Amino acid sequence: MRGYTMEKDDYLKRLRRIEGQVRGLQRMIDEDTYCIDVLTQVAAVSKALQGVGVQLLDEHLRHCVAGAAASGDDERTESLVHEATKAVERMLRA
Amino acid sequence: MRGYTMEKDDYLKRLRRIEGQVRGLQRMIDEDTYCIDVLTQVAAVSKALQGVGVQLLDEHLRHCVAGAAASGDDERTESLVHEATKAVERMLRA
Amino acid sequence: MRGYTMEKDDYLKRLRRIEGQVRGLQRMIDEDTYCIDVLTQVAAVSKALQGVGVQLLDEHLRHCVAGAAASGDDERTESLVHEATKAVERMLRA
Amino acid sequence: MRGYTMEKDDYLKRLRRIEGQVRGLQRMIDEDTYCIDVLTQVAAVSKALQGVGVQLLDEHLRHCVAGAAASGDDERTESLVHEATKAVERMLRA
Repeated sequence: MRGYTMEKDDYLKRLRRIEGQVRGLQRMIDEDTYCIDVLTQVAAVSKALQGVGVQLLDEHLRHCVAGAAASGDDERTESLVHEATKAVERMLRA
Repeated sequence: MRGYTMEKDDYLKRLRRIEGQVRGLQRMIDEDTYCIDVLTQVAAVSKALQGVGVQLLDEHLRHCVAGAAASGDDERTESLVHEATKAVERMLRA
Repeated sequence: MRGYTMEKDDYLKRLRRIEGQVRGLQRMIDEDTYCIDVLTQVAAVSKALQGVGVQLLDEHLRHCVAGAAASGDDERTESLVHEATKAVERMLRA
Repeated sequence: MRGYTMEKDDYLKRLRRIEGQVRGLQRMIDEDTYCIDVLTQVAAVSKALQGVGVQLLDEHLRHCVAGAAASGDDERTESLVHEATKAVERMLRA
């Protein structure tokens, strides 16, 4: 069980749509679509992926971090917050 | 013919790898992988996509923009630069 | 009192350094520095600012979110997590 | 003379406004403003800085890159495009 388990179907649906968008990018390249149009679509797929990332972060905070804090486990809370912050840094650099 | 036509196979290879990574994300969700590990992988896929975007931009500048400028077509150069800048803005917001 | 109150001096020091960097950018423009060099410095200042943002987020999670969760106030925890996620979205779009 | 020389006053005005915003951030920290409100303002300043960066890039492409291409200097064009692409990568990672 994970924080996101209840929303699994939603995540899978979003990721399948993103997979389809990546295949669409291949088709665009294959058909010599104008570079700026491909680039616009690359930005759209990135945005969709970031959306999934933000949603996962939300779930992590809501379930893992808040859960550890509610149970009074300060050390675990500290470590989960640290992981979350590091993950945000990776998203910002991505 | 586009600026990237010569590199088509390279783009398609990178995009197929990204497609595989997106399928890997679905598998991670399906197997209840720890949310932060999924998030790390989301950032990695975003980074790979941005890499494709930067490469497309480079090709656009190298071929379309420089080509128009070399041919002395100032109006077209102006408009291609404007498109490139707008595309960078969309990537920054993605 | 805020989550960051204990680190106030550190934040102020970092922000004063960033202020100095922004003044440095004005000097670069004033002295007709090569555009790419100005751009590199703009990216450095952005990165320093994002670092302050990530640190503030960390403090928010560590103190506000974890504090509300530890006190058993689920509604408040929920709302603080929501605020944090929205803030991350704004940073990603910045 | 740089690509941006004609717009120098505009750049300086924008950078002075950003400097003021950074001083505003110091005031917010000093007055113990709610962390999420500080974070929102950090994102706003980052966005303003990115705006300056995008404008500098636009000028670089419009003047330096297009200028080199128009003069038929392929090697210099190549190298200026490469610099521009690297600068965009740094902005994306910032």
